[in-house]
Amino acid sequence: MLKAKAIVMVFLCGHLMVQAQTDNGMLRLDEFRNARKRQIIQIPEVNGFQTLKCDFHMHTVFSDGHVWPAVRVQEAWQEGLDVIAITDHVEYTPHSEDVKVNHNRPYELVKDAADETNIVLIKGTEITRNTPPGHFNAIFTGDLSGYIEDRETNKKDKVAVMKAAEQNAFIFWNHPGWQVNNIEGSYQWIDFVDELTEENVLHGIEVINGFGLHKKALDWCVDKNLTVLGTSDIHNLVAHDYNLGDHVHRSMTLVFARERTAQSVREALEAGRTVAWASKYLAGKEEHVRNLFNACVETGPRFLLKNNRAYYEIKNNSDLYFELELQSGDGTKQITLFPGSSQIINAVDGEEALEYKVVTAFIRSNKNLVVNIPLN
Amino acid sequence: MLKAKAIVMVFLCGHLMVQAQTDNGMLRLDEFRNARKRQIIQIPEVNGFQTLKCDFHMHTVFSDGHVWPAVRVQEAWQEGLDVIAITDHVEYTPHSEDVKVNHNRPYELVKDAADETNIVLIKGTEITRNTPPGHFNAIFTGDLSGYIEDRETNKKDKVAVMKAAEQNAFIFWNHPGWQVNNIEGSYQWIDFVDELTEENVLHGIEVINGFGLHKKALDWCVDKNLTVLGTSDIHNLVAHDYNLGDHVHRSMTLVFARERTAQSVREALEAGRTVAWASKYLAGKEEHVRNLFNACVETGPRFLLKNNRAYYEIKNNSDLYFELELQSGDGTKQITLFPGSSQIINAVDGEEALEYKVVTAFIRSNKNLVVNIPLN
Amino acid sequence: MLKAKAIVMVFLCGHLMVQAQTDNGMLRLDEFRNARKRQIIQIPEVNGFQTLKCDFHMHTVFSDGHVWPAVRVQEAWQEGLDVIAITDHVEYTPHSEDVKVNHNRPYELVKDAADETNIVLIKGTEITRNTPPGHFNAIFTGDLSGYIEDRETNKKDKVAVMKAAEQNAFIFWNHPGWQVNNIEGSYQWIDFVDELTEENVLHGIEVINGFGLHKKALDWCVDKNLTVLGTSDIHNLVAHDYNLGDHVHRSMTLVFARERTAQSVREALEAGRTVAWASKYLAGKEEHVRNLFNACVETGPRFLLKNNRAYYEIKNNSDLYFELELQSGDGTKQITLFPGSSQIINAVDGEEALEYKVVTAFIRSNKNLVVNIPLN
Amino acid sequence: MLKAKAIVMVFLCGHLMVQAQTDNGMLRLDEFRNARKRQIIQIPEVNGFQTLKCDFHMHTVFSDGHVWPAVRVQEAWQEGLDVIAITDHVEYTPHSEDVKVNHNRPYELVKDAADETNIVLIKGTEITRNTPPGHFNAIFTGDLSGYIEDRETNKKDKVAVMKAAEQNAFIFWNHPGWQVNNIEGSYQWIDFVDELTEENVLHGIEVINGFGLHKKALDWCVDKNLTVLGTSDIHNLVAHDYNLGDHVHRSMTLVFARERTAQSVREALEAGRTVAWASKYLAGKEEHVRNLFNACVETGPRFLLKNNRAYYEIKNNSDLYFELELQSGDGTKQITLFPGSSQIINAVDGEEALEYKVVTAFIRSNKNLVVNIPLN
Repeated sequence: MLKAKAIVMVFLCGHLMVQAQTDNGMLRLDEFRNARKRQIIQIPEVNGFQTLKCDFHMHTVFSDGHVWPAVRVQEAWQEGLDVIAITDHVEYTPHSEDVKVNHNRPYELVKDAADETNIVLIKGTEITRNTPPGHFNAIFTGDLSGYIEDRETNKKDKVAVMKAAEQNAFIFWNHPGWQVNNIEGSYQWIDFVDELTEENVLHGIEVINGFGLHKKALDWCVDKNLTVLGTSDIHNLVAHDYNLGDHVHRSMTLVFARERTAQSVREALEAGRTVAWASKYLAGKEEHVRNLFNACVETGPRFLLKNNRAYYEIKNNSDLYFELELQSGDGTKQITLFPGSSQIINAVDGEEALEYKVVTAFIRSNKNLVVNIPLN
Repeated sequence: MLKAKAIVMVFLCGHLMVQAQTDNGMLRLDEFRNARKRQIIQIPEVNGFQTLKCDFHMHTVFSDGHVWPAVRVQEAWQEGLDVIAITDHVEYTPHSEDVKVNHNRPYELVKDAADETNIVLIKGTEITRNTPPGHFNAIFTGDLSGYIEDRETNKKDKVAVMKAAEQNAFIFWNHPGWQVNNIEGSYQWIDFVDELTEENVLHGIEVINGFGLHKKALDWCVDKNLTVLGTSDIHNLVAHDYNLGDHVHRSMTLVFARERTAQSVREALEAGRTVAWASKYLAGKEEHVRNLFNACVETGPRFLLKNNRAYYEIKNNSDLYFELELQSGDGTKQITLFPGSSQIINAVDGEEALEYKVVTAFIRSNKNLVVNIPLN
Repeated sequence: MLKAKAIVMVFLCGHLMVQAQTDNGMLRLDEFRNARKRQIIQIPEVNGFQTLKCDFHMHTVFSDGHVWPAVRVQEAWQEGLDVIAITDHVEYTPHSEDVKVNHNRPYELVKDAADETNIVLIKGTEITRNTPPGHFNAIFTGDLSGYIEDRETNKKDKVAVMKAAEQNAFIFWNHPGWQVNNIEGSYQWIDFVDELTEENVLHGIEVINGFGLHKKALDWCVDKNLTVLGTSDIHNLVAHDYNLGDHVHRSMTLVFARERTAQSVREALEAGRTVAWASKYLAGKEEHVRNLFNACVETGPRFLLKNNRAYYEIKNNSDLYFELELQSGDGTKQITLFPGSSQIINAVDGEEALEYKVVTAFIRSNKNLVVNIPLN
Repeated sequence: MLKAKAIVMVFLCGHLMVQAQTDNGMLRLDEFRNARKRQIIQIPEVNGFQTLKCDFHMHTVFSDGHVWPAVRVQEAWQEGLDVIAITDHVEYTPHSEDVKVNHNRPYELVKDAADETNIVLIKGTEITRNTPPGHFNAIFTGDLSGYIEDRETNKKDKVAVMKAAEQNAFIFWNHPGWQVNNIEGSYQWIDFVDELTEENVLHGIEVINGFGLHKKALDWCVDKNLTVLGTSDIHNLVAHDYNLGDHVHRSMTLVFARERTAQSVREALEAGRTVAWASKYLAGKEEHVRNLFNACVETGPRFLLKNNRAYYEIKNNSDLYFELELQSGDGTKQITLFPGSSQIINAVDGEEALEYKVVTAFIRSNKNLVVNIPLN
């Protein structure tokens, strides 16, 4: 069959015919089809901001990815993402024997599909210097055709990064802990990035990249006031790399934005209103992780007093996952808040609050969010 | 091991140790345990009322069920129910050779567990006359010990029902279409129930009982102003009877109540503020089904105009399931709103609204809810 | 990151680290990764032949598919297929602005990956004439570079098909019922295919293509002695189109072959030893469907005689699905044999066999396999 | 409804009506029902013996369990067990206010259901002495009514155990590591069991009990030639305690028996032909664990030689789970063999075998099975 327009079309119709139907000797077996739907990732408003689910780092056949760009929009729609950037490598195009090198093409090819599915598409690319310093993502870029010149130059210079800066791109350092054990000098705060930061050219760091949580990078974001990012850096199919379901989602950035627009995302990124998210784990600046927790978790009123213990229901109104360990107070020792679920906790009568460490939420490399659960 | 108190204890601790741990030659394999959590059934407030998930019909070993009463509380907690009534048969106690007949016991045995898990427990029983008229549930009853006398009397009289009425119970007719093909005279609006209704002794009918949707009973509720009920009538384990997950839940009644209390449930039942729910299907009086739909489904603003078509995202913010077919307007023909998901729809530019039939929501035996989706 | 070789590498290591590990400030979250494994599709030997799971029709970015060819090998490996052919369209290359047209490339690009994962890769292409006659797949082809000439010629001629015939390809007619309602003259046994059949150029027909079971095509295969084929015709990701799991697999051909080699597959195809499979449904020539059923389903000895009924356990030792309805004999009326499961059936004492219609297995458009279940 | 015979009836009909059907104003929603089927646990024959899946330790409302005995048969049938023993506590009957104490009843109540579903039912009980020595299971017992006398006697004496011995029961020590940290003197090889062993009254030990793997008990079995047992000791519903699916099953004993009969099970238990199984973990005497591994895992012939590496496919033809770490040879370092799946491994050309430690299979407390994978 000819199916070039298939991806967009399926978005427009979520209807599944459950029964096999006979039609002129043709039995339609739509009962085995995957349902077409956009799964909403439930996260309440955080201090009046929408929580946008964003992935600013992904690849396609236009560099070393395994899919046509349209698949990235399709995956994003189904998984419930709001904002994506396709960021193929400028300097690394292993399919170039078959796929014409054109860094503007992935964006061009999927702009319509993104528009039609209400996905905010941001133009971007990955600038792939040798390690160290390694790779940088530039998003909110302009024309990418000129970037390719850098390919032949010294793989460690700043030229391509500065070109992105000229285009007023938002630039972040990718997976700084990548190959930490294999490449000398990697995973250090090096002069290269120090200079970029001083010059206000570097705006953020990937604290989460795919299945890696780069804890030291979180400290650098906090100490140098850079924006915390989480990305999938997906090359393969998302469903082949991630065991999707329950609490497992692709790694991404939660952006607390005024509106679901590119402009609002840019404003929020510059203001640093983000939390990086990797399935069970959150990493970000204390203020934002705390606000996020408070928006998601709610403790009901005391519903029982028995044997001098007061009982409460604690609800997780989000699709995030939180694991809590008691720090102070006489109450339930450990609480696991699975997505969209609640637990019963208890405390000694008269206890006004319990203090918990959220062991799945990091605010520094060696520090977890500590929250106060008021009881009343 | 001795585990008599196990059920209650597990409620208090939702924490799962993911790793096997060694302790004095003892490896703990808690990684294979089922996570203990209360899954929240997401349904937004409906016109300022809480939507309580209620099951007023279930059995235990004290009549012909297969579980100890505590299991009913455990299941309810895990599945996210708010209110339950254990309603063992007055006249049918096939385990009486082993289990002492005492109709007050199921309630007594689980009152503490219900209290400790924030489940509203309502006392009740099933009065099991021959069919027709068949069975009646009485909930909000008093002492049930006297009901047993009826056992020896004519299995078709009203004595036990009137005893419940004296106790000011809320009384509903169970599964009126049961054995519709096997018993002559069944599934008719008969004198027996007509008299009870006239005397204001009968207050509702099970429109949904387990896997049966009794469509004619919906008409009776509408025409005679009786309350619509949905129940599981579960005898076995809920997880053995239902293919739980995705859109499948036990059959139940959604009650729109001011508070999560027995008193509020009673008030709502008397006011008829209910919808019966069976996984993909809803049945109720038009007003309540419509309010429920409107509380759950939200259409966003136009996000694209292209080729004279306007595009919208339609969201289902609930764990209910809706299947829509276009009735009037030039727009997307069919929409399936899976739980917690959204779809993209489009309409011709300038269309102000689309009218859909909700084929999964019944407001009469032969009539579906019709909704107006405003576009802007 | 740079991941060009990632797909092959993951095949070599099925090990999953379950725990997060700390390493120089880097937390590895491999617990969220999808497990890398080849799921075996259990189907016993059939009359001494291996049952190879084959998909001879799939697309990539080299025509109108959405993935790089390597993904097709990866999917095949994970889903448990033995044999695949990538069959991009000769005449339809909508990505040609970006992807250089070269019909030999998909095969070349994945030959190594197929070799390393024990997948038998067969060279092929889809010859895409207008409908009618429509499309033909040629597999076991030679050099495909010359096929492209046909693109400018009359879209209804036989030139490309004859080129494949010259290369001694195995040629089958694709989805003959496609667009049955939209294109006049479609889904007919037309002169075009009649001539090809007469000349021994056409060897088979897709009775199953994706989610369509072309029942009339089954009759043509039986009557004209053509080989029955089932294919996915996949353009998108398999996991996006199919609701994989339980009894749902991509549509494919079961080939009863002497060995897991290209040569054996060819021999079996020519001998017509195939059954087309679409999740719950099977379609094929009676002999092969019957042999397959008999290889998979086994009835144990009588284990109980009670109230004049004899009891037996009937096992489905395969990952296929069978639904049976009693035709003659006094026994269990309906049996659903889910993959890898068994059921208890009973029959009146003395019954020597029961006859069932396998309603999910077709041997003609209007005829199901009928099986005899011996009881002893 | 009245459903006393429901459990047995559902076994007889595995048919699911997929579509809702209208019948006299009654819509049947059988599409939401759980499919009734017996899931086969795939384990090949081991050295000519059938591998029977057995659980010799479970509870019902007749002691401190939460279900009517019939549920235990239903669960066993669905999960694919072959042999069960209901072993309610002799001395601990917390429901005795409501359930008449009668230790013979659970067996009597389910004998018919077991017979009708081809489950081998073995009579048994749990003798519940204080800890230490703790609890003992006696299976293959006679009349249990006399056992109850012991209730008033010293909770540490041997009287009840000797009564079981007189009935020629098979007797094993339960969960010897239970409460290892709370009760002084527990988890030791104590005089009490030493004497029983000397007198040939004690025949085995639970090395696996539910979610506990008692590693020291494995050494005792090996050193004193006692039979290794694994049991669920289930009190609640199996599905509420275990996260069933994938590789998770209830804990049980694999018995290598000549036939699926009580007599064969007894013979195998006495001969010690068992392996205890807890989802990912196996524990047993080396000979039996090795035979089991060899029956399940199969390495195919070399299918590729490339860059001086030879490639092989290694298959796990069972529903067991094996994790392997390379011990010697130049080959793939780690292999995870998920149930019913295969992996590709490679080795340097010329390597004749690879040696792996099966880290999920224990043959002593501190020793894993080591296997030799021949390459050819």
